[in-house]
Amino acid sequence: MAQIAYVNGAYVPLSEAGVNIEDRGYQFADGVYEVCLVVDGQFWDEAGHLARWGRSLDALSIRRPISDRALKIVMNQVVRKNRLDSALVYMQATRGVAPRNHPFPGDAVSPSLVLTARRFRLENSNQIAARGVNVITAPDIRWARVDIKSISLLPNILAKEAAQRAGAGEAWLLRDGAVTEGTSSNAWIVNAAGELVTHPKGHAILGGITRETLLHCAASLQIKVVEKQFSLADAMAAREAFLTSATNLVMPVVKIDEKKIGDGRPGPLTMRLREAYIRECRARAG
Amino acid sequence: MAQIAYVNGAYVPLSEAGVNIEDRGYQFADGVYEVCLVVDGQFWDEAGHLARWGRSLDALSIRRPISDRALKIVMNQVVRKNRLDSALVYMQATRGVAPRNHPFPGDAVSPSLVLTARRFRLENSNQIAARGVNVITAPDIRWARVDIKSISLLPNILAKEAAQRAGAGEAWLLRDGAVTEGTSSNAWIVNAAGELVTHPKGHAILGGITRETLLHCAASLQIKVVEKQFSLADAMAAREAFLTSATNLVMPVVKIDEKKIGDGRPGPLTMRLREAYIRECRARAG
Repeated sequence: MAQIAYVNGAYVPLSEAGVNIEDRGYQFADGVYEVCLVVDGQFWDEAGHLARWGRSLDALSIRRPISDRALKIVMNQVVRKNRLDSALVYMQATRGVAPRNHPFPGDAVSPSLVLTARRFRLENSNQIAARGVNVITAPDIRWARVDIKSISLLPNILAKEAAQRAGAGEAWLLRDGAVTEGTSSNAWIVNAAGELVTHPKGHAILGGITRETLLHCAASLQIKVVEKQFSLADAMAAREAFLTSATNLVMPVVKIDEKKIGDGRPGPLTMRLREAYIRECRARAG
Repeated sequence: MAQIAYVNGAYVPLSEAGVNIEDRGYQFADGVYEVCLVVDGQFWDEAGHLARWGRSLDALSIRRPISDRALKIVMNQVVRKNRLDSALVYMQATRGVAPRNHPFPGDAVSPSLVLTARRFRLENSNQIAARGVNVITAPDIRWARVDIKSISLLPNILAKEAAQRAGAGEAWLLRDGAVTEGTSSNAWIVNAAGELVTHPKGHAILGGITRETLLHCAASLQIKVVEKQFSLADAMAAREAFLTSATNLVMPVVKIDEKKIGDGRPGPLTMRLREAYIRECRARAG
């Protein structure tokens, strides 16, 4: 069966799903996106993703292409039309199509909206988590507003490509000596005191929805969390390390730049948090 | 007559010119572009633009979609098919269409190539130059590799929008106290000693093709040029100020953040350089 995409009001085969070459998303990276996880027919953290979607659009002064209520219907439809039970739903909005010119076009230009869905298997993710992933490090050369979930992702893909070439699953980004986050995930360590440490929110990281839910899970498990910068040396010396994202959930990191973290196997606290996260998402969605 | 665009081998009406929603230019800003000026049927600085096109593609490890020889033919055709004599030719290449995933797709994925052309009138540009333009200033929050002419332009359009709202034609960007460049042009001043000052090349500015040709013109006119950083205070105190880009040629700046530069009219050295630039481009193209 051909994959089905949603493009500006219509459901079309993905291979025929197009936008005009003067869409500002194509010429200026003038747009935002979200990736939402669906497991066993239920959206996880849907409210959090929709809230951030709204914040990103507001930050760039892009109008909502459709209401959140209508968007939820499209999100469900794109999963259903692709006959998926567990899926990654990708949604992107841009400022729309206008003759190429840097300033925003007038209000007559409607924003563009596209959605796709593709298969996700929680079992596969669990299998990867059982082994853990390696990360490399790279300089954080991104712009100063990465808290906006924009499609301006060129530095991210360059660092992720470097990671893949090095046999790693992610690159942790270093700015002024601190690990800010990964190219598409937040970065966490468990320090010698058994505390969770992760970079504080602000303009320097994307405030992850999975990150927020995990903070809640940690509190429930009475695990102390410190939101502060940590260095590469801190990460190398950590008991455990992991990353979070909607796609990865809670994913153990077992090596950083070829150095084993702890004993080089997924950490016990990390695995407890992963289980707690999955339980929490199922409970919230149910 | 409908505008005609070139998209991956075909000439099509612009309104029907589309790319797939999974083009990496649309989802990741994974592409590069050039804007070339055609005046009276002749491309200005064509060799310089093609050389930079190649450098940008190489920097991102994107294959050339077609040879430079074939590209020149398409550049000419897109002007001819739009029945233009003077035009701005826009060309963009991206890494191509692949299922959304951060790392580069395999070599089987072909890069995408699109070109458009639209009318340019040198008389209009001359009229604007006779009055000069205002600029505002804004923090330079772009990524650390703006020397690559990528389509990752979100910070640029945000600053240009701010300029337009303030009634200005450009925003000059400030990093660590220095004016780096404009959002789509290089920045220059004439200091008290009558020297031209502009930010040195490197990762912090886009090395303009117009900038290069103007350096040559200045040398011919025996005007001293100093490629070094200058501050906002230096700019405010300058005798003259101007900006350069393929679209603007050499454009006098008469106000910065509402402060008049010199007597608030286009400077004499600036206008001499503008004339020299036009003469040089005509001579090279002829």
